[in-house]
Amino acid sequence: MYIGVIGGQFCSDEEERLAYEAGGLLAKRGAIIICGGLSGVMEAACRGAKEEGGTTIGILPGPFRGDANPYVDYAIATDMGQARNAVIVRTADALLAIGGEYGTLTEIAMALKMGKKVVALSSWEIASKGVSDEKIVRAEGSIEAVEAVMGTSR
Amino acid sequence: MYIGVIGGQFCSDEEERLAYEAGGLLAKRGAIIICGGLSGVMEAACRGAKEEGGTTIGILPGPFRGDANPYVDYAIATDMGQARNAVIVRTADALLAIGGEYGTLTEIAMALKMGKKVVALSSWEIASKGVSDEKIVRAEGSIEAVEAVMGTSR
Amino acid sequence: MYIGVIGGQFCSDEEERLAYEAGGLLAKRGAIIICGGLSGVMEAACRGAKEEGGTTIGILPGPFRGDANPYVDYAIATDMGQARNAVIVRTADALLAIGGEYGTLTEIAMALKMGKKVVALSSWEIASKGVSDEKIVRAEGSIEAVEAVMGTSR
Amino acid sequence: MYIGVIGGQFCSDEEERLAYEAGGLLAKRGAIIICGGLSGVMEAACRGAKEEGGTTIGILPGPFRGDANPYVDYAIATDMGQARNAVIVRTADALLAIGGEYGTLTEIAMALKMGKKVVALSSWEIASKGVSDEKIVRAEGSIEAVEAVMGTSR
Repeated sequence: MYIGVIGGQFCSDEEERLAYEAGGLLAKRGAIIICGGLSGVMEAACRGAKEEGGTTIGILPGPFRGDANPYVDYAIATDMGQARNAVIVRTADALLAIGGEYGTLTEIAMALKMGKKVVALSSWEIASKGVSDEKIVRAEGSIEAVEAVMGTSR
Repeated sequence: MYIGVIGGQFCSDEEERLAYEAGGLLAKRGAIIICGGLSGVMEAACRGAKEEGGTTIGILPGPFRGDANPYVDYAIATDMGQARNAVIVRTADALLAIGGEYGTLTEIAMALKMGKKVVALSSWEIASKGVSDEKIVRAEGSIEAVEAVMGTSR
Repeated sequence: MYIGVIGGQFCSDEEERLAYEAGGLLAKRGAIIICGGLSGVMEAACRGAKEEGGTTIGILPGPFRGDANPYVDYAIATDMGQARNAVIVRTADALLAIGGEYGTLTEIAMALKMGKKVVALSSWEIASKGVSDEKIVRAEGSIEAVEAVMGTSR
Repeated sequence: MYIGVIGGQFCSDEEERLAYEAGGLLAKRGAIIICGGLSGVMEAACRGAKEEGGTTIGILPGPFRGDANPYVDYAIATDMGQARNAVIVRTADALLAIGGEYGTLTEIAMALKMGKKVVALSSWEIASKGVSDEKIVRAEGSIEAVEAVMGTSR
């Protein structure tokens, strides 16, 4: 199972901790982590996964593999800017969003458009005509989030 | 000025009317309309623009120019699926979002990420940690929306 | 009819003259010119087309519409680097290649892969196992090239 | 080192044998194989690599990871059609081309444009104005090809 971990290049300490924990838990359960390959949430999730012996893939916006954070096992250089977000979402079976940057919202929206499960940890709330979108699964901590995104709970 | 008009392939009668009116008003003010080239909001905006002698560009997700709605003057076949949304947003100077589909949210988020103005008509509300995002400019009708997106009012 | 005019950003005086002439002839026959939007062969073809009242579209590799040459009517900013070549080829009905840069060869090969007609003026020859590829139509001057690419000959 | 192995989905028995051998030799030397992830040359190279304990990445043109051949370890679903070729070439350090399909020529041309080494086994010859292109390194068999692409010769 490929789980997309999406979140900002810059993040709070709390988001970093959540991403690190989630990365480790996902790796323990055998998930491959796919992300944008850069710093912040992406790096913390990859670091957590590597400490548990997991595998990490980074889909980079720029032309150089060397831009990946040091915990990415396999770096893909797309040179396609923000369009690379579509590749992450297409490839992932389900997505875990951590924190609230606009790039993260792009990926959440693409995932919902493609009918993929999105679990949010301290991330965007979205509403249309005042009605909150219930397609996003809210989780309270990294354990609940990983259970939700791996499919053992709603 | 290139204004991106973003909205669903399927839309309500009200959204269609708003898109048609906005397309006409944008054309009168000399804006070129860039959109996803398909039906719904995209077609209504193009139809409105053409009735006022405007120019319309459709950036299609599929491989065939013939998939564009009949009011698209210049159709671009990307064959890149959802990644084509990034091309619409990159090319537009500012964006007008009508209605609430996930594809529209993808484009709103990309536009905010790229620092472009987004005006919303009956579209998504987004919030992070319970705080509503004020970067999206809300408009009440097509006239106010077009004034806002063309920059004469905030 | 959309004709892709493909050729280098840097070109010889002879290639520039051929592109300028071909642009004008294509415009006279009502073709819309689609190209990479930059300088060299692309600019010369657009300039020729504009002098005959034609329409030109430039599909740019970078993120800024302003990078287009001054003879591009409609500039599309893809921010997708070399992947933008696929958009030019997908959108064109047939292609006219002028000169011999590697980017041009990329587009020739993509066009042949997609089953589109390619006419070459002073451009690449390609051979597999020593056998020259006859799918590329060779032309001697701009008049013959435009007739070939517009489909009135061969 | 990431080596791009490029070649057709349909190939001769001889090309399949060359790809299989090259895949094995590349894996033995520690290279990660990146390819288009489909059948033919791509599958044979991956099969060869897996038999030697190597690692293989497939960058797919379509939206489904499941379209990858069974010897791909990590499949990336781009849903970007031919534009995905640019991702393979960007990510690879050097490329080994086997056989003569148009998609392969696209990748050869992109690699030369990006200044990357291309080694050809029974693949395209290209010439501009009658002069053969010497940038492509010709190899006679899989051993010579792997040595050339890994940089120990020329």
